[in-house]
Amino acid sequence: MALVVTARDETPRPQTALDRLTGLVRADLDRVNALILERMQSSVALIPQLAGHIIAAGGKRLRPMLTLASARMCGYVGGRHVALAAAVEFIHTATLLHDDVVDASDLRRGLATANAVWGNKPSVLVGDFLFSRAFQLMVEDGSLAVLDILSRASAVIAEGEVLQLVTSNDIDTTEADYLRVIDAKTAELFAAACRIGAVIGERSEAEAHALETYGRNLGVAFQLVDDVLDYSAREAELGKTVGDDFREGKLTLPIVLALQAADERERQFWRCTLEELEQRDGDLERAIAILERHGTLAATLARAAQYAGEARRALGMFHAGPEQQALDEVIDFCLERGF
Amino acid sequence: MALVVTARDETPRPQTALDRLTGLVRADLDRVNALILERMQSSVALIPQLAGHIIAAGGKRLRPMLTLASARMCGYVGGRHVALAAAVEFIHTATLLHDDVVDASDLRRGLATANAVWGNKPSVLVGDFLFSRAFQLMVEDGSLAVLDILSRASAVIAEGEVLQLVTSNDIDTTEADYLRVIDAKTAELFAAACRIGAVIGERSEAEAHALETYGRNLGVAFQLVDDVLDYSAREAELGKTVGDDFREGKLTLPIVLALQAADERERQFWRCTLEELEQRDGDLERAIAILERHGTLAATLARAAQYAGEARRALGMFHAGPEQQALDEVIDFCLERGF
Repeated sequence: MALVVTARDETPRPQTALDRLTGLVRADLDRVNALILERMQSSVALIPQLAGHIIAAGGKRLRPMLTLASARMCGYVGGRHVALAAAVEFIHTATLLHDDVVDASDLRRGLATANAVWGNKPSVLVGDFLFSRAFQLMVEDGSLAVLDILSRASAVIAEGEVLQLVTSNDIDTTEADYLRVIDAKTAELFAAACRIGAVIGERSEAEAHALETYGRNLGVAFQLVDDVLDYSAREAELGKTVGDDFREGKLTLPIVLALQAADERERQFWRCTLEELEQRDGDLERAIAILERHGTLAATLARAAQYAGEARRALGMFHAGPEQQALDEVIDFCLERGF
Repeated sequence: MALVVTARDETPRPQTALDRLTGLVRADLDRVNALILERMQSSVALIPQLAGHIIAAGGKRLRPMLTLASARMCGYVGGRHVALAAAVEFIHTATLLHDDVVDASDLRRGLATANAVWGNKPSVLVGDFLFSRAFQLMVEDGSLAVLDILSRASAVIAEGEVLQLVTSNDIDTTEADYLRVIDAKTAELFAAACRIGAVIGERSEAEAHALETYGRNLGVAFQLVDDVLDYSAREAELGKTVGDDFREGKLTLPIVLALQAADERERQFWRCTLEELEQRDGDLERAIAILERHGTLAATLARAAQYAGEARRALGMFHAGPEQQALDEVIDFCLERGF
């Protein structure tokens, strides 16, 4: 598989493409993490226990870092971006909790999911709690423009998740259906996280739109790579179970493309395994072999690289500088996970 | 069982104590229902299908009517209360959807619950969608004070639901624990729905507080009666299954009070049926017999009547008038359901 993305300057590269961003926003991110810890507290002890499990599991804090860096790139010098980044992470965490209930996944970031430890019930309710906390943080911030962006994003995310349920187990799902799902369930929050930076930086609508476009395309690229990893990553490294999407009958792009190229025998295989969820030992391996034979994992990564290019173009509207460079390298990070 | 509440004037009473309120806000409530229908739409067809199922099932629209009548009683003459009443109902509906997932109930308002028809997954996600829509309605309204009230209420409701989970199956649950649960999971939204009326009517904090106090006590009374009905109502009339709380091991007030009076034999019965959920044919009947022997259903209704009295006292701060009278009669409605 060819390396699609190459380093674009001769300065020494950080260890991973995310390190520059992490280093740049470190102090602000520490404040975000402290605020998250503070605002997930409740006199009902199970709430911080369960929320702490998923939040402490950590993740990369990619979305809040996008808000932090976008705000700084837009010249914002105050402290509002910290609370709004925390709100973005709370919304993300709430959707993870509800997504884990929905997907009955066993692993999330290499740890047992909250619902596997505590059951579905508290996961749903603690998700609701974190979602409410996100809105409380926004209300305290006091910007109706930000509330508008994130309340709309939340509705779109829920729509995307429902659409994904509807297209799961349906081998007639089209590429357009699939792109609509990931644009809503993943890219919308990336886009919102970035746009907020322009809003509190009081930049023009053109710049806000450019940052949103950057975030949206980055989010699509991120999700496409994620879908590839579900059929290729080493489990320990990825921190999730390979084959989750397959077991749930999700129609991700590698599958949708493979269905376009399928003969009747393969189509029957997908119908049996993904629609009827009749899966036997060896079926995942056979699925991966089919995807590789048709080159759809590589094709999906190539598609991701196209979206990455769109993200890079949108970012080009902004003057060069440390934040702009860090946000540019995030694009590399999202792609390189897949190689 | 003595009739705790008597009619307080000699004018002909409406058929039920809720009819005056319903008649009074009819035109506004029609606009609320139209707005609910409009805003639950989505290009993802399953969303309006599922949301329509639970929203069309109807219910009494008690909470939005409280917002409508409170606003009018506070002299508000504009149209904002319609959207905010719809937001209140969306939040209520979202919690119902998530509560049904949690409780695995089979009946809601006499119809199959959404999760029994479509499964848990869409119920969680459509709940998220409606919750987001509620915030979008509030953002369009543009009042940070209202957003503050309802984002806080949403967090408190989620805390109450988690607390209920924690106290379920725990026969050491105290009366204070139980009251904390229902204050959060039920009374908080009643209180918020009423306070909003004072806020948009631009009344003093004292009046806003009085309306909130009315709503909170009304909500507690409502829930106490609901808990009694779970052990006494005729199923068809109530539209829910008698014994739901028992089957789930919920420690509601009739049980908590019965545990206070229990001998070792009864305590063993409750431990077996509610903590270990080992229930056999005839256990529900035995439970009801124990509750009746100790008079805890009547005691719970008497407690409800005390809260109703508090609600009535708080309402006394406002001048007599059609809305004030209608809100007063809602108190009777909440109590009379239990007789």
